[in-house]
Amino acid sequence: MVDNKSLPIGVFDSGVGGLTVAKEIMRNLPNEKIVYFADSARIPYGSKSKDTVLGFARQITNFLRTKEVKAIVIACNTASAFAFEELEKELDIPVVGVVLPGARAAARQTRNKKVGVIGTIGTVNSKLYARFIQNEDSEIEVYGKACPLFVPLVEESMATDSVTLTMAKRYLQPLMEMNIDTLVLGCTHYPLLKETIQSVVGENVSLVNPAYETVLVLKKVLEEQGLLSESKEKPFHEFYVSDAPESFNEAAKLILDLEIDNTKKINIESY
Amino acid sequence: MVDNKSLPIGVFDSGVGGLTVAKEIMRNLPNEKIVYFADSARIPYGSKSKDTVLGFARQITNFLRTKEVKAIVIACNTASAFAFEELEKELDIPVVGVVLPGARAAARQTRNKKVGVIGTIGTVNSKLYARFIQNEDSEIEVYGKACPLFVPLVEESMATDSVTLTMAKRYLQPLMEMNIDTLVLGCTHYPLLKETIQSVVGENVSLVNPAYETVLVLKKVLEEQGLLSESKEKPFHEFYVSDAPESFNEAAKLILDLEIDNTKKINIESY
Repeated sequence: MVDNKSLPIGVFDSGVGGLTVAKEIMRNLPNEKIVYFADSARIPYGSKSKDTVLGFARQITNFLRTKEVKAIVIACNTASAFAFEELEKELDIPVVGVVLPGARAAARQTRNKKVGVIGTIGTVNSKLYARFIQNEDSEIEVYGKACPLFVPLVEESMATDSVTLTMAKRYLQPLMEMNIDTLVLGCTHYPLLKETIQSVVGENVSLVNPAYETVLVLKKVLEEQGLLSESKEKPFHEFYVSDAPESFNEAAKLILDLEIDNTKKINIESY
Repeated sequence: MVDNKSLPIGVFDSGVGGLTVAKEIMRNLPNEKIVYFADSARIPYGSKSKDTVLGFARQITNFLRTKEVKAIVIACNTASAFAFEELEKELDIPVVGVVLPGARAAARQTRNKKVGVIGTIGTVNSKLYARFIQNEDSEIEVYGKACPLFVPLVEESMATDSVTLTMAKRYLQPLMEMNIDTLVLGCTHYPLLKETIQSVVGENVSLVNPAYETVLVLKKVLEEQGLLSESKEKPFHEFYVSDAPESFNEAAKLILDLEIDNTKKINIESY
């Protein structure tokens, strides 16, 4: 009988943003092996339709299943918003998305019951954060705001640039007018803008990073299902991409502080 | 025997930018029927690798061949830079890219033999504009500058916004320091930024829009090969996309000033 506990955890995102989630897994579950997939040939997902993103997510989970993963983490808000409920139904292993854990954390943290959610067009228009937050407490008012330039600004290494500050003020002003006290960073790129965003919203607004909350949920699910790794060895993580590995490796070094040289390119369209 | 003259012209881009080329075809070759494909599920191409973009371009030409096109126009600078030479060798119908016509126009227009080229990271790093411009006149100095935020700024309808002006000044300053007198708009989105770009470089720098030049080349190629349409009827153009048709139709209305309701979504990965 296969020892499911020693199997890896599959983690995926459209790109490198989900490495912020992988990093939290490495920190909190250091014995777990990760198989990470970045869909760099088809990035970004944020402005694409539900059908398209769901199709991509199904191909990716088919690929991850070939690596015999024991659980799947959707480390991308757009893919979680569009594919979490379907994948959870379709797969016979645990699936953890970033939206539900982020929503629960926001519902716990707000004092005045006014929560802002920023993310891609897809994530914000799906209104999934609002639904999950209001499932926790129906009195909470949720205000969404898509910030489509944030991802390209992060990718251009302009996180603390004056242009990014200008855009942050524009995007966040309508949320501040609603008197929010809690703001969900509903895109895995956004924690890299934390400093700029906090300077705009001020210290009285708490920022929720779903990556951290997601790993707490993952840990609980693995515990409940008896799937936590018992290995004492340092795991050897695997990384796969759909476009050239080089730029992924550079970004991974920055986010994970890890030298990676085993990234493999695969043809994701064949899954 | 099939009358090749009455067959359509296949035109493709990663998105709606190539419609600026389609518009020039409609204006200059009003009897030609167009089959347009926008790869909206995998947009953008600009920061992806040559292998990936070439693979996408091959799938798209396979699809366009099923529509019995008599010629193919690569209405995307990145795809032209990465796939034009290969597709020209592989296909037995004429292939026209936007880079060569744009390069020739720039070589004709410059007086001081200093030309700037702006485009995506892929187009600029390919140095294909420089090669083609210097094939025309080896004394011309070519200065490239990638402007990765221009496409998202156009897509956010911020063409004349102060943030776009700020970014244009930053991107174009190094080219102005080289004393260029001609600037190639080496991405099909950039003609939509013409006003902002011209205000930064001043009236003494001429802007080259490869879309216009491309259609002159297309016309010449069709003439030479006896492929110009002799139809007197208004052609009924066809539009295909790889993601949801709705947002394409909206953009098409703006760029082409045409109400389109026959856009079909296809599964491009199966070609």
